[in-house]
Amino acid sequence: MKKRIVIALGGNALGENLAEQMTAARGTAKAIVDLVEAGHEIVIVHGNGPQVGMIETAFETAAKADPHFPILPMSVCVALSQGYIGYDLQNTIRKELDSRRIPAPVAAIITQVEVDPADSAFLNPSKPIGGFMTEAEAEVLRSKGIPVMEDAGRGWRQVVASPKPVNIIEAETIRAMLAAGQIPIAAGGGGIPVAMQDGQYRGKSAVIDKDFSAAKLAELINADMLIILTAVEKVAVNFGKPDQKWLDTLTVAEAEQYIAENQFAKGSMLPKVQAAISFVAPHAGPPVGAGPQAARRTALITLLQKAKDGIEGKTGTIIRN
Amino acid sequence: MKKRIVIALGGNALGENLAEQMTAARGTAKAIVDLVEAGHEIVIVHGNGPQVGMIETAFETAAKADPHFPILPMSVCVALSQGYIGYDLQNTIRKELDSRRIPAPVAAIITQVEVDPADSAFLNPSKPIGGFMTEAEAEVLRSKGIPVMEDAGRGWRQVVASPKPVNIIEAETIRAMLAAGQIPIAAGGGGIPVAMQDGQYRGKSAVIDKDFSAAKLAELINADMLIILTAVEKVAVNFGKPDQKWLDTLTVAEAEQYIAENQFAKGSMLPKVQAAISFVAPHAGPPVGAGPQAARRTALITLLQKAKDGIEGKTGTIIRN
Repeated sequence: MKKRIVIALGGNALGENLAEQMTAARGTAKAIVDLVEAGHEIVIVHGNGPQVGMIETAFETAAKADPHFPILPMSVCVALSQGYIGYDLQNTIRKELDSRRIPAPVAAIITQVEVDPADSAFLNPSKPIGGFMTEAEAEVLRSKGIPVMEDAGRGWRQVVASPKPVNIIEAETIRAMLAAGQIPIAAGGGGIPVAMQDGQYRGKSAVIDKDFSAAKLAELINADMLIILTAVEKVAVNFGKPDQKWLDTLTVAEAEQYIAENQFAKGSMLPKVQAAISFVAPHAGPPVGAGPQAARRTALITLLQKAKDGIEGKTGTIIRN
Repeated sequence: MKKRIVIALGGNALGENLAEQMTAARGTAKAIVDLVEAGHEIVIVHGNGPQVGMIETAFETAAKADPHFPILPMSVCVALSQGYIGYDLQNTIRKELDSRRIPAPVAAIITQVEVDPADSAFLNPSKPIGGFMTEAEAEVLRSKGIPVMEDAGRGWRQVVASPKPVNIIEAETIRAMLAAGQIPIAAGGGGIPVAMQDGQYRGKSAVIDKDFSAAKLAELINADMLIILTAVEKVAVNFGKPDQKWLDTLTVAEAEQYIAENQFAKGSMLPKVQAAISFVAPHAGPPVGAGPQAARRTALITLLQKAKDGIEGKTGTIIRN
């Protein structure tokens, strides 16, 4: 059965460092085009960790060397990373499509994602970004009002808020591309974080979790499935213990029970399971254009290379209501 | 009469430096939304001079400080600049549309523009980019095979090739947006320069003139009009001389005669007139989807603030076949 699918690519799909990006993108393109070839409608959301860190470092270094050099706000750094990764992905996917004689156009859309300025995440910035610093360097930033945090014994880092997405500003363009049989790449790096202020969306100093943005986008375009790719084939409980158990399916109720038991690692599997729930669980009101198929929504957590088998129900962990 | 229009924004529309960009973008948004409100279909192409220079400088500085830092190829720098400027433009235009209650979506598309690797421009790189250097610094680059040039007595600069665009890879996405009543921002900075090699588009070290890319895009989407914005209201002959004459209209034959007389400044009005000709003059074969209206194609060269009057034939210089 042909599905409308939003697929969220993580670090593994783009390489953990820049040298790996080209090779990684090639493998990613093959796996994605396999899904296109199987007849599915695909929307691609990607992370930007190493790339946005690199962009930030480059501009920080330039500003140290020349005090007149502009310091880019986090929102602008995300915009630059969307250009960088979007180009790489659309170029590599185009090649893979051409080699299989599939004419479907593919293009990256610069995407703003709205957050709520009252989101409690802004009171407690906790997402580490950029390189490591000494405590003294961190103190200088802190004295300027920039939040910093000691990161798991590895040194100090700047931290930003990670609020939840509430709207995708360019969703209509993604719908138009899908209606024309095209493959959109959107909400890269979780999207450019913006909030409405005095009649204009203003950039916020934040990083939105790309899996939550993918879930929000999947809701807004009425997708059948959200695929969150990660480094393991299935979600496990009692992970790393003698009674470890891989899960084939997970209902929202079960997932919430496991979350209450702290079964999923913070900053790792936990936000992925939560993003999956945010797509498949019933909301307060019906989402825009949802209709009866909202009840059929599923999320899949698996490896990139297993995505096709996962859609066919052969592997991965399926989360449903 | 409602027209399909490609509008090429120059430095004036985005500010000559980064501090000016925000104010400039606001004025640009108003002028563009005036055209949307008048019922025209608008595609926006923009330059990227200051922004791509800034991105290059930031990465060069970071690479000097840390030899492991990646040096971005020119094609990737253009991709980053498309993210940067695209975000700014779509954000500011969205605000202007909202304030007039026009729901039309606006979004920037990351755009690759194909060039011919046999283009003679590659033999003679002549477009200066980035900051100024001493002759000694320039010599270091030259010894690494990077072309440099003395720039009008102001110092040495790196130079890249400026080949002509032959295709816009993402043209189908721009068509899909127009069909859905949307406002695409595309081919920013002239587009990411690529050429086909072994079945894949590969980034080239080049900068494509954005007016020529706008002309190529106008041809591919079968636009009625190409507007090239600049710092003067009309094109002049005998510019700055006692017999200076502002031109209301210019046929291709007249324009070619004036070009032969060196009436238009190299690197300034000359490429704008040439880009206008490339859109309105008959080609060897009919362009894709051209039909009879190809003969009705016009180009307009004027100020941003005069674009609306220019479309109505009240000012500017109209170039027609």
